[in-house]
Amino acid sequence: MPSGFAKTPEPPYYAVIFTSTQTDDRRGYEAMAEAMMTLAHEQPGCLGAESARGADGLGITVSYFRDEDAVHAWKQHARHLGAQTLGKERWYAHYELRVAKVERAYSGPQGR
Amino acid sequence: MPSGFAKTPEPPYYAVIFTSTQTDDRRGYEAMAEAMMTLAHEQPGCLGAESARGADGLGITVSYFRDEDAVHAWKQHARHLGAQTLGKERWYAHYELRVAKVERAYSGPQGR
Repeated sequence: MPSGFAKTPEPPYYAVIFTSTQTDDRRGYEAMAEAMMTLAHEQPGCLGAESARGADGLGITVSYFRDEDAVHAWKQHARHLGAQTLGKERWYAHYELRVAKVERAYSGPQGR
Repeated sequence: MPSGFAKTPEPPYYAVIFTSTQTDDRRGYEAMAEAMMTLAHEQPGCLGAESARGADGLGITVSYFRDEDAVHAWKQHARHLGAQTLGKERWYAHYELRVAKVERAYSGPQGR
């Protein structure tokens, strides 16, 4: 598996799709994003994450979890709640967050 | 809703999460990507899409559909099948495709 991809197991599992644009106030953002990515990966039931932000400013992060309980535990994690508050007050101009149950998955291309 | 975000209805609906890295062979890619985005949006049951590719080369496109039938119809669309073949043979170094049922969705921050 090339780097950047989450090593997810056979479905079913959960995906949290977070799409966002940012404000001009980036104070503390990079350090927090890195800390949260590390913390998330330490959570039981976290299966990894994939993240991209384009030149137009739109970012998509998809985090994968074993089940709904793991999604909920991460949402309610004390340090993550602090990050969410700062995100709402300072860093995000707009976001959409969708919780979805992955039913099928495919890899490709064959042989690469 | 700021530009770049898909205007999705209340869940449930489907998300197709396509994460990819690209080869060095970009011949025809931009034109095809644009054509496929236009074509997808004309399909009945397509609810929009969100897309980002970062400086590290990892790209994430999430397409939203009303139901499984709409996902299947788009997968089997003749012109889309042609694009998929070129993608596998030429454009994508690696990809992961996940089909997921969106159960809950939130927007934020409040007031922005």
